[in-house]
Amino acid sequence: MGNTEVNINGIRLNKTLFESCKWGSTPDGGMNRVALNDDDKSVREWFAEQSKSYGCSVKVDQVGNMFATRPGMNNSLPPIAMGSHLDTQPAGGKYDGIVGVMSALEVMKVIHENDIKTYAPIAICNWTDEEGARFSPAMLGSGVWAGVFTPEYAYARTDKNGTKLGDELKRIGFLGDTPAIYKENPLLAHFEVHIEQGPILQREDAPVAVVTGVQAMSWFNVELRGREQHCGTTPMDARADTLLAAAKMIIAINEAALGIPGSLASVAVINSTPQSINTLASRVQFNIDARAKDNGVLAQLEMRLKEVCDEVSAKTGVKIEVWDRFWNSPRITFDERMVETVRASAKESGFKYLDLQSGAGHDSVYTSKICPTAMIFVRCKDGISHNPSEFSTEQDIEAGAQVLLRAVLAYDNIIQAQEEHKH
Amino acid sequence: MGNTEVNINGIRLNKTLFESCKWGSTPDGGMNRVALNDDDKSVREWFAEQSKSYGCSVKVDQVGNMFATRPGMNNSLPPIAMGSHLDTQPAGGKYDGIVGVMSALEVMKVIHENDIKTYAPIAICNWTDEEGARFSPAMLGSGVWAGVFTPEYAYARTDKNGTKLGDELKRIGFLGDTPAIYKENPLLAHFEVHIEQGPILQREDAPVAVVTGVQAMSWFNVELRGREQHCGTTPMDARADTLLAAAKMIIAINEAALGIPGSLASVAVINSTPQSINTLASRVQFNIDARAKDNGVLAQLEMRLKEVCDEVSAKTGVKIEVWDRFWNSPRITFDERMVETVRASAKESGFKYLDLQSGAGHDSVYTSKICPTAMIFVRCKDGISHNPSEFSTEQDIEAGAQVLLRAVLAYDNIIQAQEEHKH
Repeated sequence: MGNTEVNINGIRLNKTLFESCKWGSTPDGGMNRVALNDDDKSVREWFAEQSKSYGCSVKVDQVGNMFATRPGMNNSLPPIAMGSHLDTQPAGGKYDGIVGVMSALEVMKVIHENDIKTYAPIAICNWTDEEGARFSPAMLGSGVWAGVFTPEYAYARTDKNGTKLGDELKRIGFLGDTPAIYKENPLLAHFEVHIEQGPILQREDAPVAVVTGVQAMSWFNVELRGREQHCGTTPMDARADTLLAAAKMIIAINEAALGIPGSLASVAVINSTPQSINTLASRVQFNIDARAKDNGVLAQLEMRLKEVCDEVSAKTGVKIEVWDRFWNSPRITFDERMVETVRASAKESGFKYLDLQSGAGHDSVYTSKICPTAMIFVRCKDGISHNPSEFSTEQDIEAGAQVLLRAVLAYDNIIQAQEEHKH
Repeated sequence: MGNTEVNINGIRLNKTLFESCKWGSTPDGGMNRVALNDDDKSVREWFAEQSKSYGCSVKVDQVGNMFATRPGMNNSLPPIAMGSHLDTQPAGGKYDGIVGVMSALEVMKVIHENDIKTYAPIAICNWTDEEGARFSPAMLGSGVWAGVFTPEYAYARTDKNGTKLGDELKRIGFLGDTPAIYKENPLLAHFEVHIEQGPILQREDAPVAVVTGVQAMSWFNVELRGREQHCGTTPMDARADTLLAAAKMIIAINEAALGIPGSLASVAVINSTPQSINTLASRVQFNIDARAKDNGVLAQLEMRLKEVCDEVSAKTGVKIEVWDRFWNSPRITFDERMVETVRASAKESGFKYLDLQSGAGHDSVYTSKICPTAMIFVRCKDGISHNPSEFSTEQDIEAGAQVLLRAVLAYDNIIQAQEEHKH
């Protein structure tokens, strides 16, 4: 099919990305387009119009997920999808999610302008509320599609003002009638371009990464109980200082991860009670975010974390009252053939690339449970994300979209060969 | 004057203490009698009646401080006062402050019942809002009397509901007309019995301490700035983890104080931003409470604290954006003759006693700026205070009151000798 000749227009892609950001942009160069607000409504409407002008028909499902599909030669097949999200953090940037949908739109433009007849239909997905910033939890739209949540669960999610997601969907005109479940609205595959949200590509001087899967992760809630004592009257050696014990645990947790290759452990949330300058904290709560390249390493890390915190507890007399692993997500391995397709595409495009695991959650985490999925990471400046200063260069975004274009067409060829072999 | 024969009735004292606690007692055995609430009104009225029945006349000043005075032989002299406070923390105990006023009342009873003619008048002070729990700052009533605050400043203090102290004084009938300033309502001396609020007397097996002064203290506000980074995508060696740096500082602060004899340093308040489990904190705020036996040691400690935190900052790349010593109170040395009077009284009473410095603030801190002041500490269980489980034994409270009784009478003798020597 001679597809190797077609190329992404990086300048146009970047222009379209900025055009799409006129809804929700903030004076600091960032974005505030939380799910289903008026700006999200506007960009959705714009996205639907854009897609239609490049040969797509647009479906909206019952939780607002958008599917812009261009027919192929064999429309009995579900589409090969390219998805991400247009919603942002309340103080987010122009790249997280948006690069994925805009890259997909650019790929669609190139396919359409070059009048490429794909074998399978090709679709762009805009997943609802990936950020979870307005309506928790994150990746809600793709989660419903994957059968992890029910539409009713999604409808009942409320924002901080008590507004329900279901009511907002209706208000902005994106409560669609396509069933919000993969069984009735299947995808053949799901490709996602996303900024790395980490500093490794920058450090290794590569524009793109082939994402092989998602790290194993666990979240813990830890609550400590020491003694509320007067800071002025309690000798240093007669204290059960809860915050001091927490500080020792935070350092031990850091050292534990440093000692286990392929693992990460972070404490980012801490709260002490009572908040009184001259009264030692009697209760401290903190969370641990633990991640590892595979489930075995995560299990090893988790054991070590408990061990080192128990040691601090024993030495300080501060009790660990709660040690609760309240969330766990085992390692996700993306579909081998999809990943290989992306890798070949990066190689053939002539870009330096790395194999990386995703450390963050993405819509692809949920689609991977249902259909072959792969991701392409695009380098971003200093690894900064969820911040107005989030940035990727025009060239790197072009590279990501180019890899996507090649991979989609190559995967379509694989599907065609496979289907034709059947007959 | 044969005063050595008179003795405190510990059983009666403890009974009176419990009687006074029927206003504001909580089901857990603690107290909630924050300044100027209905229970404070009731106990003030009861206290006035009690004092009158033991030969006192009662004055109330413009900020509600109560002065119950029993005339002496020379009523041209200001009274020798025994003061403390009847207000409590919202989840406080039956001993902090209350022991001081009840001991003074018991002393007054013994003096009255034994028909002792003191040379100077003797007074009991109930200082308004010592705790500062309802109306900040603490020691407000004694602070106004000492000229540290104006009555107008006190009137304008609001509680969490926006109610003004001045309006509450009026409402409960304790907006008196005695000028709330030492110049117009002087005291000859101020003795205060108070629970230790620390564990040293228990550890040293002594019922009472002679308080020689108050530690030097400083409070710091520290604000750190690192990088907001994704916990899942940022390698451990590419982080400027603000909370990890704070943890290292907390430990270094602790070690700094351990390395400087006679000093204390505590971090009890901490706040991290953003409170997101998978985003490293970019800002952490904490406070340091630094204390030392004298101003020189405090200065040494303060220098060391900055040094160790700077070291952590340099190593971690987390900046110290704010290092603000927002409060400092130099060491207070109580009047030598007053302290010696208390020490002699403890010795003659046959009690084991220690010399201690106060680590906490008390009304005596302000009175000591104006008139000769000394304090007597009473042992309390496990050093626990500001808590429903706060406790001192009947015997230890009796010991404190006995030392107070002897000291007041001895000091009165000293005054008498001094005055008669003048003539």
